[in-house]
Amino acid sequence: MIDLQTSRQLLNEEQFVERLKHIGETKYHDKHPFHARMHEGSLSKTEMQRWIANRFYYQKCLPIKDSLVMSKLPERSDRIRWRERIVDHDGRTEDDGGILAWLRFAEAAGISRNELIEGKHFLPGVVFAVDAYVNYCRNNEWWLAVASSLTEVFAPTLVSYRIEVIERHYPWINAEGLTYFRNRLSQAPRDSQHGLSLVLSAADTYEKQDLALKAVEFKCDVLWSMVDAIQNGER
Amino acid sequence: MIDLQTSRQLLNEEQFVERLKHIGETKYHDKHPFHARMHEGSLSKTEMQRWIANRFYYQKCLPIKDSLVMSKLPERSDRIRWRERIVDHDGRTEDDGGILAWLRFAEAAGISRNELIEGKHFLPGVVFAVDAYVNYCRNNEWWLAVASSLTEVFAPTLVSYRIEVIERHYPWINAEGLTYFRNRLSQAPRDSQHGLSLVLSAADTYEKQDLALKAVEFKCDVLWSMVDAIQNGER
Repeated sequence: MIDLQTSRQLLNEEQFVERLKHIGETKYHDKHPFHARMHEGSLSKTEMQRWIANRFYYQKCLPIKDSLVMSKLPERSDRIRWRERIVDHDGRTEDDGGILAWLRFAEAAGISRNELIEGKHFLPGVVFAVDAYVNYCRNNEWWLAVASSLTEVFAPTLVSYRIEVIERHYPWINAEGLTYFRNRLSQAPRDSQHGLSLVLSAADTYEKQDLALKAVEFKCDVLWSMVDAIQNGER
Repeated sequence: MIDLQTSRQLLNEEQFVERLKHIGETKYHDKHPFHARMHEGSLSKTEMQRWIANRFYYQKCLPIKDSLVMSKLPERSDRIRWRERIVDHDGRTEDDGGILAWLRFAEAAGISRNELIEGKHFLPGVVFAVDAYVNYCRNNEWWLAVASSLTEVFAPTLVSYRIEVIERHYPWINAEGLTYFRNRLSQAPRDSQHGLSLVLSAADTYEKQDLALKAVEFKCDVLWSMVDAIQNGER
C-alpha cells in the first residue's frame, strides 16, 4: 500500500488500480446493509420489488448519461467504443437491450411494466442521486465523467453473486428475468477496461489522478444513496 | 400560401412543410454568392480547398451535436433511430463513416489529412457558427434541437447538384472523393423524415411550430455564416 499522505508522484497503472480497488472495498454499495440483507435472503417481497422498481430509474438514465459522455470524448475511435454502452442499454433494435431486459426482470418479479415506465415507483432520493450522476457527467470534464463509470471494475463480482442470490433466495422471481445480469457479466469488464485506459492516459498528473479517484468515490456515493432511499421506502 | 399575419392556428403537416420549404427557398445556403460561384465553376482551387477544409469543422462536430440531441430525446425508440446519424458520421468502425469520407474528399482535393485533423485551416467565423449550432442543441429543448436539423429537407437537391458540379467544373478533385455526397443522398431523406415526424408531434401549438421554424432559420444562418467566413478567407 502506498503512503497516501506523503507521495504526490504520478501513480503507475498498478498503483492506480490498487487505489481504485481500495475505494471499491470501502465504499461500493455491496457493503450497504440493505444489500447485505438481500444477499442473505432476508428481504421481503415488497423490499425486493422496491429495489427492482427504483433501480429502473438508474437503468433508464444510463443511455442519457452515456450520450452526454460521448458528446465530450475528443476522439472518434473512443466515441465508437463508448457507443457500445448505449447500444447495450437502448438495444440494437427496440426489441433488445438492457432497459428492456430490466423491464422483463421487473415483470418476472411481479411488477407491472406500464407502472414502471410511468415512473410511479421512483423514490425522490433515488431520482436525486441518479440525476446527480447524470449532471456530474454533463458538467464535468470528459475524463472525470469517464472516471465516474469506473465502479464497473467492481461490478462483475457483485453481479455474478446477485444471480446466485436471486436464484437461491428469491425463487418467486422467474429465472428468465435474469438475462440483464448475465449480459452485464461480459459488458462491464469490456467497458471498464476502456474507461480505465482513457482515464489513465488523460489523468497525467497525480492531482488529476486524485480527482479521477474522487469521481469514483462520488459514484459510490450515488449508488449508496440510492440504496439508502430504497431501504427507507416511502415516507 | 397561408396568411402569416392573421392565422395563428395549428398548421397541418402540409402547411408546416410549406412554411419549411419557404425558408429553404429564401434562406438556405445554396443561395449564397460563394455557392453560386462554386456551381458555375468559377471558384479558384484555393477557394474550393478553403471551403472543403473549413466545412470539415462542421462535419467533425456533427456526432457531438447528435450525441447531445440523443441525450435529450425522451423515447428509447427515437434514440435508437437518432443513433444512426452518429453511426453515419463516426462510422460503424474506425474505417468508415462520414468524417473519414470527408477526410478522403479533402485528400482527393489535395488537402493534407493531418493538417485538417490538426485544425490548421479552420477560420474563426466558421468555428463560431458551428459552435453556435452545437450550443443551440445543447441548451434548447429537444424538439427545437431536432427542428434545427430540418435543413436536411433541403439538402438532397443541393448534394446531388454538388456531385455534378464537382465532376464537371473541378476535375482536379479525384472522383473517388465524392463518396461522402453519394452516401448523404440516402441518409439525409431518412433523417429528415424522422426529424420532421418528431417536430410535428412535439410542436402541438402554433407558437411551438413557429419556434420550430425559427430553429430552422437559425440553422440556415449558421450555414450561411460559415460560407460568409469561407468567402472572406483569412484576414
